[in-house]
Amino acid sequence: MCALQNALVKDKDDVKLRCVVLSANGKIWSAGHNLKELHGNPDIQRSVFQKLTDIIRDIQLLPVPVIGKVNGYAAAAGCQLAVSCDIVVCSKTSKFSTPGAGVGVFCSTPGVAIARVMSRPKSAYMLMTGLPVTGEEAFISGMVSRVVQAEDLDREIDEITCAINAKSRAVISLGKEFYYKQLAMPLNEAYPAAGQKMEENLQLSDCQEGIASFIEKRAPHWKHE
Amino acid sequence: MCALQNALVKDKDDVKLRCVVLSANGKIWSAGHNLKELHGNPDIQRSVFQKLTDIIRDIQLLPVPVIGKVNGYAAAAGCQLAVSCDIVVCSKTSKFSTPGAGVGVFCSTPGVAIARVMSRPKSAYMLMTGLPVTGEEAFISGMVSRVVQAEDLDREIDEITCAINAKSRAVISLGKEFYYKQLAMPLNEAYPAAGQKMEENLQLSDCQEGIASFIEKRAPHWKHE
Amino acid sequence: MCALQNALVKDKDDVKLRCVVLSANGKIWSAGHNLKELHGNPDIQRSVFQKLTDIIRDIQLLPVPVIGKVNGYAAAAGCQLAVSCDIVVCSKTSKFSTPGAGVGVFCSTPGVAIARVMSRPKSAYMLMTGLPVTGEEAFISGMVSRVVQAEDLDREIDEITCAINAKSRAVISLGKEFYYKQLAMPLNEAYPAAGQKMEENLQLSDCQEGIASFIEKRAPHWKHE
Repeated sequence: MCALQNALVKDKDDVKLRCVVLSANGKIWSAGHNLKELHGNPDIQRSVFQKLTDIIRDIQLLPVPVIGKVNGYAAAAGCQLAVSCDIVVCSKTSKFSTPGAGVGVFCSTPGVAIARVMSRPKSAYMLMTGLPVTGEEAFISGMVSRVVQAEDLDREIDEITCAINAKSRAVISLGKEFYYKQLAMPLNEAYPAAGQKMEENLQLSDCQEGIASFIEKRAPHWKHE
Repeated sequence: MCALQNALVKDKDDVKLRCVVLSANGKIWSAGHNLKELHGNPDIQRSVFQKLTDIIRDIQLLPVPVIGKVNGYAAAAGCQLAVSCDIVVCSKTSKFSTPGAGVGVFCSTPGVAIARVMSRPKSAYMLMTGLPVTGEEAFISGMVSRVVQAEDLDREIDEITCAINAKSRAVISLGKEFYYKQLAMPLNEAYPAAGQKMEENLQLSDCQEGIASFIEKRAPHWKHE
Repeated sequence: MCALQNALVKDKDDVKLRCVVLSANGKIWSAGHNLKELHGNPDIQRSVFQKLTDIIRDIQLLPVPVIGKVNGYAAAAGCQLAVSCDIVVCSKTSKFSTPGAGVGVFCSTPGVAIARVMSRPKSAYMLMTGLPVTGEEAFISGMVSRVVQAEDLDREIDEITCAINAKSRAVISLGKEFYYKQLAMPLNEAYPAAGQKMEENLQLSDCQEGIASFIEKRAPHWKHE
C-alpha cells in the first residue's frame, strides 16, 4: 500500500501527468489486505485500515482522474480500492466480492465504498453472502463505469485516456475537485455552489481559449494551468 | 430558456393541465447553453446558469408530472434538463453527454444533476471524459425511467400520460410535492413524515371517492381538487 | 402484519436462527394494505402505517439477514416491504408497482422505500404512473439483489442461505448492524467509524478462529457468539 500511495502522488504536481491508470498483473486485481497482518497487533490493524483510507482520499485529491482497469478478481479491500477510483472499467470476466465474513472479518470498510456505488439490496447481498458478482453485474449495479470484453479492455482504456488527454488539465482538475465537493451537498446547496464554480471556471485562460477555439472552429491550444 | 420557462408555468393552475411533455424537433434534443453567451460578460454568465436552475426548480414545483421525451442528443445543460424532468423516456438511439471540459468548461452544473441519478463511477466517467452514453446505457445507469425503440416512443409517452390522466390531479400533486421533500430527508425522518402525508391524503375528497370506487368495483369520478 | 412481525422477531435471540426468508403462496407476494382498513377511522389509518414502519425497523434490527423471496406481484406497501428486506431475490415473472394514486392514495410511504433503492427518474415513474415493472427491470434499477428464472428461485435462495449459514452469526450480526449505521453517515464519518468497527470485529473469538482457519487451511469452527 505504501508503494501504491507513493506512485499515486509522486508526480501529482507535474503538469505532464494527465491521468493515472491502476492495473494489475495476473488473475487477481487485488485480494485485499493480508489477513496475516490483521492477526494480532491492534496497532498494525489500525494502520492497515488507515493506510487504505488515506489512499482513497489521495485518489480523490489527485488533480487528475484515476482510472481502475480491472481484469480479474477484486476482493474485499481490493474491491474497495477498485470502486474508489474516479472511473472504473472492467472486463466481463472480472469478478468482485466482499467475502470477509467467511473468515470472520465482515467487510465493513469495503462496505462503506460499495454501499455508495450501488443500491442497498445489492451491496447487502455482497456483504452478507460474500458471493461474487460478474463484471456485467457490476456494470448494471453501478459499481463500474464501463464493462467490455477482455480483449477490448486496452482499447477502452485508450479511449478514456485519450479523451482526458485532449482536455486542459487545469479544467479537469477544477472540475474533479468540485465534483467530489458537490456530491456531499444537498441539492439546494449544490446548485448555487456549482454556479459559482462555473463562473470561476470561465475565468481560466484555458476556458477562454476553449470557447474561442469552438467559435473559431479550430483546435484549442491548452496551457494546462 | 425564457420561452421554455413560460410554457412550463403558464397553465400550472389550470385544473385541466395534467402533465407536461418536453420534447424536441430534430436530432438534437438540447445541446445546452449557447457558448457564445458564456464568452465574456460575467453578469450574463450568472443569469444563464441561474435561469436553468430556476427552470429545474419550476419542474419540481409544478403540480403535475413533467416528462422528458428524448429522441436524439442531450448534451451538457441539455442533459441536465433532460434528467431533471420528473420522468424521462428516451429512444435507444438517443445519446447523453457532458462534454463541456472539451471546450474548457467543465460541466459542473450538469454534474450536480447527473451525479444524483446514477452511480459515482458512471457520472465521473461522463464528466471527466465527455464521452457519450447511449439510451440503453442511460437506462441501465438510472438516468432515464424507460428506454424504447425510436418507433415506440410516442406509444410509450401515450401510455405514461394516459396513466397520469386517469388519476386525480389533486392526489398526484400532493404526492409529487411530498416525493421531493422526502428525498432530502434521512430515512428516520422520511417515514414519520410520509405517515402524516398519507393521513392528509386520506382526507382528500378524491381519495375517499377513489377508495369507495375500489370497494364498489366501479370507475372513480375525480374532482381533481 | 402483527403475525408477520411476531414471526420475524420471536426467535431473534436464538443462536440457531441464522437468516429469515419472507416468501408468499400464490401469485400475489403482497398487495399491500387493505384499502377497507384505510377507509374511515384516522386512528386505524395511523396504526396501519405505523405497524409497517415498525416491521421495517425490526427487519433492520434483526441480528440475522432477512431475505425477500418474490415470485409474483408486490404492490404498494407490499412493494415497500419487499425492497425493505436486507436482500431481495425475485423471479423474472415477478412484478412490482406502486399504484396507489389510481385509487386516490398516492404511495407516499412506499415511495420512501423505493426512492432509496433506485434512481429518482425510475421511482418517480413508478409512483406517478402506477405502472408495473418486471423482475428484470427491478434488477436493473437496483430494487432487487438478484433476478432468476422462476424455476431457479429455490436454488438461488438455497445458495444465499447456505452462504450465510456457513458464516459466524456473531460476525454477520456485527456487520449488519454497522452496515445500516454507516449508510446514514457522510463518507468522511463512515470510514473512521468503519475502521473502529473492524478493530472491534477483530476481537471477536469467531474472528480469531476465522483468520486462524484461513492461515491453517482448514474449515473454521464457529461459536456464533
